[in-house]
Amino acid sequence: MASHLDVRHVLTDCPSVFVQTPPSLVTRTHSRPLVTPLLRSRQVHLVKRQTHTVANMPRLNLGNINPHVVEAKYAVRGELAVKSEEYRAKLRRGETDLPFSEVISANIGNPQQLDQKPITFFRQVLSILENPRLLDNEQVLLDHLGYKSDVLERAKFLLKNIGSVGAYSASAGVPAIKESVAKFLERRDGFPADPARIYLSAGASSGVNTLLHIICANPSSGILVPIPQYPLYTASLSVLNATCVPYYLDEAASWGTSVETIKEAYNAAKRNGTDVRAIVIINPGNPTGASLSEADIKSVLQFAAEENLVVMADEVYQTNVFIGKFHSFRQVLLTMQKENPGKYDGVELASLHSVSKGMVGECGHRGGYFDLVGFKAEVEEQIYKFVSIMLCSPVIGQCLVELMVNPPRPGDPSYLLYEQEYNSIFEGLKKRATALYEAFKEMEGVECGEPQGSMYLFPTIHVPAKAADAARAEGRTPDEFYCMRLLEATGVCVVPGSGFGQKEGTLHFRTTFLAPGTEWVSSIKKFHQEFMNKYR
Amino acid sequence: MASHLDVRHVLTDCPSVFVQTPPSLVTRTHSRPLVTPLLRSRQVHLVKRQTHTVANMPRLNLGNINPHVVEAKYAVRGELAVKSEEYRAKLRRGETDLPFSEVISANIGNPQQLDQKPITFFRQVLSILENPRLLDNEQVLLDHLGYKSDVLERAKFLLKNIGSVGAYSASAGVPAIKESVAKFLERRDGFPADPARIYLSAGASSGVNTLLHIICANPSSGILVPIPQYPLYTASLSVLNATCVPYYLDEAASWGTSVETIKEAYNAAKRNGTDVRAIVIINPGNPTGASLSEADIKSVLQFAAEENLVVMADEVYQTNVFIGKFHSFRQVLLTMQKENPGKYDGVELASLHSVSKGMVGECGHRGGYFDLVGFKAEVEEQIYKFVSIMLCSPVIGQCLVELMVNPPRPGDPSYLLYEQEYNSIFEGLKKRATALYEAFKEMEGVECGEPQGSMYLFPTIHVPAKAADAARAEGRTPDEFYCMRLLEATGVCVVPGSGFGQKEGTLHFRTTFLAPGTEWVSSIKKFHQEFMNKYR
Repeated sequence: MASHLDVRHVLTDCPSVFVQTPPSLVTRTHSRPLVTPLLRSRQVHLVKRQTHTVANMPRLNLGNINPHVVEAKYAVRGELAVKSEEYRAKLRRGETDLPFSEVISANIGNPQQLDQKPITFFRQVLSILENPRLLDNEQVLLDHLGYKSDVLERAKFLLKNIGSVGAYSASAGVPAIKESVAKFLERRDGFPADPARIYLSAGASSGVNTLLHIICANPSSGILVPIPQYPLYTASLSVLNATCVPYYLDEAASWGTSVETIKEAYNAAKRNGTDVRAIVIINPGNPTGASLSEADIKSVLQFAAEENLVVMADEVYQTNVFIGKFHSFRQVLLTMQKENPGKYDGVELASLHSVSKGMVGECGHRGGYFDLVGFKAEVEEQIYKFVSIMLCSPVIGQCLVELMVNPPRPGDPSYLLYEQEYNSIFEGLKKRATALYEAFKEMEGVECGEPQGSMYLFPTIHVPAKAADAARAEGRTPDEFYCMRLLEATGVCVVPGSGFGQKEGTLHFRTTFLAPGTEWVSSIKKFHQEFMNKYR
Repeated sequence: MASHLDVRHVLTDCPSVFVQTPPSLVTRTHSRPLVTPLLRSRQVHLVKRQTHTVANMPRLNLGNINPHVVEAKYAVRGELAVKSEEYRAKLRRGETDLPFSEVISANIGNPQQLDQKPITFFRQVLSILENPRLLDNEQVLLDHLGYKSDVLERAKFLLKNIGSVGAYSASAGVPAIKESVAKFLERRDGFPADPARIYLSAGASSGVNTLLHIICANPSSGILVPIPQYPLYTASLSVLNATCVPYYLDEAASWGTSVETIKEAYNAAKRNGTDVRAIVIINPGNPTGASLSEADIKSVLQFAAEENLVVMADEVYQTNVFIGKFHSFRQVLLTMQKENPGKYDGVELASLHSVSKGMVGECGHRGGYFDLVGFKAEVEEQIYKFVSIMLCSPVIGQCLVELMVNPPRPGDPSYLLYEQEYNSIFEGLKKRATALYEAFKEMEGVECGEPQGSMYLFPTIHVPAKAADAARAEGRTPDEFYCMRLLEATGVCVVPGSGFGQKEGTLHFRTTFLAPGTEWVSSIKKFHQEFMNKYR
């Protein structure tokens, strides 16, 4: 039963429902045990009202649901994304009152929504996993449908180890797939990996969710998170009611990671009583595209060792690198451990990867993994239990992880096509990134670093003071205002920099460079010019 | 920096690491700002020790990670399940020292891990979604691979609406699939449904996780949960640090749901200061199999209306019904609303369904949905944001939801095979359930109600006092002890009743009736007799 306070709250919310008290409720009201006869008449009255109210008003409202969910911000799929979907639906219905004929979702790294084609080898294998009866007619597949013998072999290998993709797997993933991941890590890093330390997850997001759930013990638990960042981290920390400890990346140094800056953020948080437990590194960066040098990774690991911080290395863009070279945190840590026996043994590293990005681009399949170095067995047991509650990650997504880490090799029947598709996606992304970058260079008040990697550019914008005033009048930040006008004028949906965090006084937006063609780039240029002229 | 207390803690944990202080750390130590010269010598000493310790000891341990994860219990994939996987691996390696030749995972409702074959129509469609290039050779599919024209049509319909199954969908699911679900709800319940109130999820588990995250605001938020229950609910509430308010199902009345019992539990919780906000109903029940009558559903909804409780109807077993008839909460609520204008408008109902159970049995694909009635728009916005953070549910799983709710109909080319497969799975489950039930009837000290539905039997066991003593000596409950011995002797893995909750003083275990053949049933009977003889 609601308290008197609740009743008052209800009264304020919706007085009209009190006009009538239906007779049907009276019986029930009388059957309640009342504390004292003195209170009876008032209490009956209240109970009556309240019961009627109760039946006519939902229990949940913004003021009484989980406040930590309410506090969470997630701009990538926020107001702009919702509006862009409304425009898309309008266009689909044939409504022609919009100043554009297509919505370009440059707000989200979703390659196959735009132009990226899936890798043939991967999808051929998956088609057999979904319908193993296809293997009853191998010759038809080989002769008429373009399947190669290695496709059939891989499908048989996976089916033998999985049974059915319709069955739950072990909670942390199919053992044979974890073995493939371990072999990949060994080839990539030069150090053997233990399949038992690998956890297959529904994309990297689910892995991040698991790890943060384990690491954060209470509201004072703090996690160092790069800013700008992919908002998964801040949103998940909000929901968990833990503390985000932001550290800024250095835009002037190509969005580099500076350990000095990290230390400042760390020390400030400690002074405020935050129990900083972990540091997140996104490498290559999202939204910045920056790859860390080996020396930078070393200094982050050194710092983590000194301060006893868990390291979470989000490495989902490890193959999306145009400038520099990807070094895995795992490889660097294991090298440091080898060169300094005993010194770095206590470092806990969780590295995350995904099938969603890179040349795979299979976001919709929700596949990924994280691997652990240095975690105590008793903590891993809790991780295992936590992932068990959600049963297992999608098994077809797990199979894609296997295909990603173990693609066709030179000499395999599917290799030539695989290599051609892979390289063509890579070159296509680079070309689009460059075209967009060139356009930004020409735009007044826009500054953008050379494309380094990932799937995004994150230009700085300088807007006239009048635009900032107009934004304020709408209750928006200037970057939100700019992005909203861009969407309305061009159908291009990007994300304001405030969705990722940005230094006070700076404005940015994040755009993917996945969309094909140059028309949408031209439309951004045209819009920008008009926007600047209007508010000059 | 760790406090002195932390240093002491470290000292207790692992004193050996203090033997040497490596010179490499001294420089860093000196660079620290020290508060006063007086403190310097002690502090430097401490910092040195600590820094070295820090580098050699993981940060996380059972005592400092998220206590709510540590508290959570999840028996379905607990110690017994882990041990059964070890046995399975042993058998795979050809080790022959076990007294059985096969592990039967009767601990988890995982139809396709055992014998249930996927429905052909579903998997043929999915194979095309994974490899749309198959549509370049339609005639080959039709003439040589057993595909029918409606398979091709459905695949084209889904591809048209989805684009690629490798792309993220809208956060709450593909709009066209939500429309199919809405039509299904209308056909099933006789009331139209709004696609915008439907959220596609990664199995029902993920839907439950979302809803509990929204509903529970703080530790005093309480949710009424049936006992025995599927431990997803208790485990999720532990992780969320909210309060589970158990209500017992009545074993003597075929595991019926009694509103009187619910009221008692509710009132007791209120008296203890719990802010009870919702009631979970699992219908048909897991692990009990019981289906609620229409009258029982009405009385639960009446109670929810009176006490202003959100209703969560977990209806994943809606087609696994052998005795009685499935009535959806949605149909009953909308009927009550129609017959009593205005009276039940405030009831919030979330109904959950899944592709994992029923004759579909596609657990590994992680597909499901929940639909909402009566939730405020401002609350739904928060639900939308919450599901956005994890981006979207697996798109292939979403497609399976579409196929489940919109299967081939009479006259469609695939209908006859579909109907035959569907009925054969249903009859097979019923036959196996009956065989297991008959075996339990013959076992001394075992009582089991007639199979009613779902995928489980949940017999009561009475074990001799000596067995209870032996269990205590091992630190186990008697039912855990019984199940562990059963696994060791027969390779059959079941879940102790304590994993689902059971009335004080009673013992049960849950077994699926999915495994084929009768040999495993005989081995349970044989084990049971020996167990009873040994401890008599």
